[in-house]
Amino acid sequence: MEIHVKNDPVVAIVGVTGAVGAEFIATMDKRAFPVRRLKALASARSAGKTVDFRGQKILIEELNERSFDGVDIALFSAGGGISRKFAPIAVKAGAVVVDNSSAFRMDPDVPLVIPEINAIRIRDHKGIIANPNCSAITALVPLWPIHKANRIRRVILSTYQAASGAGAAAMEELLESTRASLDGRPFTPKVIPHPYAFNVFSHNTAVDPETGYNDEETKVIKETRKIFEDDRIAIGVTCVRVPVLRAHCEAITFECERPISEDEVRAILAKAPGVRIVDDRQKNYFPMPIDASGQDDVLVGRIRKDLSDPSGHSISMFVSADQLLKGAALNAVQIAELLPQRVMA
Amino acid sequence: MEIHVKNDPVVAIVGVTGAVGAEFIATMDKRAFPVRRLKALASARSAGKTVDFRGQKILIEELNERSFDGVDIALFSAGGGISRKFAPIAVKAGAVVVDNSSAFRMDPDVPLVIPEINAIRIRDHKGIIANPNCSAITALVPLWPIHKANRIRRVILSTYQAASGAGAAAMEELLESTRASLDGRPFTPKVIPHPYAFNVFSHNTAVDPETGYNDEETKVIKETRKIFEDDRIAIGVTCVRVPVLRAHCEAITFECERPISEDEVRAILAKAPGVRIVDDRQKNYFPMPIDASGQDDVLVGRIRKDLSDPSGHSISMFVSADQLLKGAALNAVQIAELLPQRVMA
Repeated sequence: MEIHVKNDPVVAIVGVTGAVGAEFIATMDKRAFPVRRLKALASARSAGKTVDFRGQKILIEELNERSFDGVDIALFSAGGGISRKFAPIAVKAGAVVVDNSSAFRMDPDVPLVIPEINAIRIRDHKGIIANPNCSAITALVPLWPIHKANRIRRVILSTYQAASGAGAAAMEELLESTRASLDGRPFTPKVIPHPYAFNVFSHNTAVDPETGYNDEETKVIKETRKIFEDDRIAIGVTCVRVPVLRAHCEAITFECERPISEDEVRAILAKAPGVRIVDDRQKNYFPMPIDASGQDDVLVGRIRKDLSDPSGHSISMFVSADQLLKGAALNAVQIAELLPQRVMA
Repeated sequence: MEIHVKNDPVVAIVGVTGAVGAEFIATMDKRAFPVRRLKALASARSAGKTVDFRGQKILIEELNERSFDGVDIALFSAGGGISRKFAPIAVKAGAVVVDNSSAFRMDPDVPLVIPEINAIRIRDHKGIIANPNCSAITALVPLWPIHKANRIRRVILSTYQAASGAGAAAMEELLESTRASLDGRPFTPKVIPHPYAFNVFSHNTAVDPETGYNDEETKVIKETRKIFEDDRIAIGVTCVRVPVLRAHCEAITFECERPISEDEVRAILAKAPGVRIVDDRQKNYFPMPIDASGQDDVLVGRIRKDLSDPSGHSISMFVSADQLLKGAALNAVQIAELLPQRVMA
């Protein structure tokens, strides 16, 4: 299937009132993404309200089967169920879908794209391009240039994930439950299954009763293999939520096929797109969520030899990236930016 | 040197107004630790105030060179400088010192004791027994019984550390900075070098400019080898603070010399002293700081095969323990409890 995206496309945002939806708009604005017309789509609950886009008030419409008539690009971030139902409808109407849900990521017909890594896969799309999981994006942007230079055969990573990955309501619940805790008031969680104020908990996706891995962890493993096009890469991952609003951190240890030094890693990452090194040992200044929030780059620091591997093949590092930007909206808009270029060429 | 501790000892607490000092008192009370008389010692700033102990108001005295006359057991938690200066004075006065600072931990003449692991080393003391680092204790209580059954040759761990490890002032700063953040007020950190509200940062101890490891990480590595009496165990560690008040979490992956299954690990830990398994995959209920706070046990869950090691030698798990209790005051009081027993035997 060949889909032509016009130079100034009509863009639909599905889930425009969500945490990622708001960042789709802000990111398109910031990057001067050419938009002929914006269609703001959401559930019936939000229909009739407006969103601001480039000085205009855009009326929010209820998502329905006719929503995509005349739409060139549809950015979806309204959960897997909505994507499964409406993305094929959008494609049939002639749109290219960039989907932030996990619905199509592992579909062999759907490219799973981080532009810094595999922009070339966009050409294979049949109407839908999937945006990867935020924890995967955060790890893979810095790991990819290393993998290209010296194949990574094993990764062990632990995440420190923000509330934003569970949506705007989870961010609000973190704030509200923290306020209640400080005031000594009781608080009953509604969005997150555990008390969130001053607490840490294993990721709130379902846990496979057999393997003990939760869905978030399984996504990181499977999506890494698909994006790297390397089925052999061995990944151990622990996904954890921390009381932070919108940027994830990850402690990553990786092992390469050949010995690798921290200086080599630093040299590779200094030139890597989408990466900013923040690694000041003297000032004890390393990647932090408050610094990554609102930033496009994945911040990378604490680059050092993994002392548990005397063979010299392993490096540890600590990274942080904005879950709503590079982990979601920015990556999707970057994909959308590459669509017209391809067709114009 | 042979020191006789009486059945109902005179106990001195050095740093009685600190976060750990308060837990020394609470723990001795809870465990009905026999105390003939309590001496409450602190800096000049706190002298003249009182602390409550078993229905009595104990006057806080300023620590000085005569403070230990007649003292049988001295529990120190006032920083390495105070320990280095006053622990030898206490020993000279006839006391046994249980020191919570890092001052003497790696001294070959000083036993470094976690009672569940190496209580037997208490007999070797020459007046000072060191309490290990809290991150080390949290990992080692569950790792030791596994190590005994099937030697652990490699550990990779990432911590999620609470404010309490940096003292009562850091706990207060977490609360105050969070309140300011929620109110939209500016806040200048005084105790912690980074903004703490809704943030995560690499551990605030000094970073070795050569290796890139911070002091907390180096302590975990060195203390593990000393306590396990195993110089070959390879450890990679990343220490990170999260906005939590008083319980640490750790994501731990370990590799054994022989293959090991998650069922074997679970069976070992079910019988392990100081460990409670919290591992409900169906309810997504695993160790959390709010559950570990105020508890004696190290909570252990997410016990599962490390998917990055196809050889079947590696297991991952997630643990949480109260930094002020098992990570500090409880472990020290447990050591003190074993002193009279030895002399009575």
